[in-house]
Amino acid sequence: MDLNLQSLRHEIDRLDNSILQMLQKRLEVARLVVKFKREQHQNVNVPERELQILESLKGRERSLLSAEVIEEIYRTIFKESKRLQSEGKPLIAFQGEHGAFSEVAARKWNADLAPIPCQTVEEVFEGVKIGSYDYGIVPIENTVGGIVSQINAHLLASKLFIVGAVEMSVDHALLIVPGTDYRNLRKVYSQQAALTECKTFVDLMKLQPVAYYDTAGAAKMLAETWEDGAAAIASELAARYYNLEVLKTGIADARNTRTRFLILARNPQEDGGNRCSVTFTMPDRPGMLFSAMKMFAEAEINLTRVTSVPTDQGNYAFFIDFAADGTDERVAKILNEISCQAESYRYLGSYTEMNR
Amino acid sequence: MDLNLQSLRHEIDRLDNSILQMLQKRLEVARLVVKFKREQHQNVNVPERELQILESLKGRERSLLSAEVIEEIYRTIFKESKRLQSEGKPLIAFQGEHGAFSEVAARKWNADLAPIPCQTVEEVFEGVKIGSYDYGIVPIENTVGGIVSQINAHLLASKLFIVGAVEMSVDHALLIVPGTDYRNLRKVYSQQAALTECKTFVDLMKLQPVAYYDTAGAAKMLAETWEDGAAAIASELAARYYNLEVLKTGIADARNTRTRFLILARNPQEDGGNRCSVTFTMPDRPGMLFSAMKMFAEAEINLTRVTSVPTDQGNYAFFIDFAADGTDERVAKILNEISCQAESYRYLGSYTEMNR
Repeated sequence: MDLNLQSLRHEIDRLDNSILQMLQKRLEVARLVVKFKREQHQNVNVPERELQILESLKGRERSLLSAEVIEEIYRTIFKESKRLQSEGKPLIAFQGEHGAFSEVAARKWNADLAPIPCQTVEEVFEGVKIGSYDYGIVPIENTVGGIVSQINAHLLASKLFIVGAVEMSVDHALLIVPGTDYRNLRKVYSQQAALTECKTFVDLMKLQPVAYYDTAGAAKMLAETWEDGAAAIASELAARYYNLEVLKTGIADARNTRTRFLILARNPQEDGGNRCSVTFTMPDRPGMLFSAMKMFAEAEINLTRVTSVPTDQGNYAFFIDFAADGTDERVAKILNEISCQAESYRYLGSYTEMNR
Repeated sequence: MDLNLQSLRHEIDRLDNSILQMLQKRLEVARLVVKFKREQHQNVNVPERELQILESLKGRERSLLSAEVIEEIYRTIFKESKRLQSEGKPLIAFQGEHGAFSEVAARKWNADLAPIPCQTVEEVFEGVKIGSYDYGIVPIENTVGGIVSQINAHLLASKLFIVGAVEMSVDHALLIVPGTDYRNLRKVYSQQAALTECKTFVDLMKLQPVAYYDTAGAAKMLAETWEDGAAAIASELAARYYNLEVLKTGIADARNTRTRFLILARNPQEDGGNRCSVTFTMPDRPGMLFSAMKMFAEAEINLTRVTSVPTDQGNYAFFIDFAADGTDERVAKILNEISCQAESYRYLGSYTEMNR
């Protein structure tokens, strides 16, 4: 750290950015603790635990930070944790850091939910299953590729239901440290798939692409390091989270790249919608699929997605999405027919598909 | 992050630890900003800057963190920054993270100063020179080795004075994540020199030594990652800063390892002390040294340190510490004699040497 005014202020900006992320995360984890305890029917408000945390923090060795300031700040945090708990805003889990495209989709689906970042898709599924999150959002089909079969496998293994879907265009943006001269940019961090999608732009700008575990994670890291000459490819939402500057939007080679996200919950949605999903397994692949497709065709129901994935047992699992209300009697009849013919069958839910 | 109560609470502990370090650092940097502006005769209190920071932070994208909570916490931080500024506690810079042995020494020298961590020794010297820090503390002689000549070179190049010295035993301790079973420990992080000094103990415990840039830095990192099976060798002060458990103290091969630290300032101390240091350069090494030693011997003044380091100009710089008050007339006479014979000469200061 240089000891001039500009460097010191940059250091403060970076610290403030980190403090915000930490406070955010702390409120989130405190909410998860309460959620977890409620699921386990445990006592939710344990003032001794707060007191214990406070005493431990005040007992730490410190230099300029006084015990009074620690107490004041933590009283604010504890009070807000309680308020958030009583407010009881439903939580929606997504994979990635804050600002991930999954979070963008979650906000489009329902702006009144609190999006909570998870490290892995497994954590999203598991967290919804055990009731830590009310909803989970996962990408199911996109041009970035590579994650569709993984999600299908999770859908198959989990007992979760689909309660919504969002299709939206993924708009990659080039994010920079505020005030950076674009002519000084030398490298760009992002998820490998995003770097590939924006190859023409990255080459044109003569940037060295550096793969990172996550698009929003790359933005977060850039905001923490303020690395000289570095940029990140991520969402505009990520720029607003980490106080980065959006140098350019729409930098992907193919404009209008669209990704479809599914919203998962422990219980199916009761009031139907315009889409319905089922999954079933069957050893005789072409015959079964033909028979199912015939029933839908005869009922004039459009299939919107048909996917087959090999299972551990050596047979195939089919995923069928179709444009109908699952609570419709005509649909119920077809599904009943399929379930009778299938080795195993699971109704994944009926929901409304959103196009944004 | 696993979604069980224990994991969530560990996550909260880790976050709280990081939040404390960040708040600490923020208050420190804010103090440095004020110090810097004072040195530059700039207006110190600029309420617009605080308002601007607050508006920027409140304008960020957020999930559970509300603008009100950001405002409440930052009002606390700003208020405390102002209080610290008016309190005006002198700052002493040291190289390393909080909990470094240099900080232990600084606290022994004067417990009423605020120790501020610096990344490098250069930053300590530079910061004291430009008035960002009131004092700097640097190790000058120790059995760990490797830094003495570096400090001598800085002393030679800088215009700083020695205003104090502390000699103390460096007590290496093995720090662990609270509750860790010592039988599960597999590796230990610390500065290479500390790992070497504790080799017998590290071997006995069958730990894999992993070199880290700093002893206290290793402790800080361990407190952030809670890496399974890992320990750190650092000071007990570091354990209190980062909420680690002290498994064992005094783990160095050689007990009573002692290190001598110098306290530096922009101006010499006027009221003398029991030690005095000078540095001078001379092409004819043995003759000059003999002549100087003779003068001290005749005056019955003990030399406590004699070091020669080659300079860029191809001659030698001598560092002489002796047990006398530099303001003493007898001493002044000898120093005058030396300064006349030397190519270049600098009085480094007279001060009190502490033995702890």
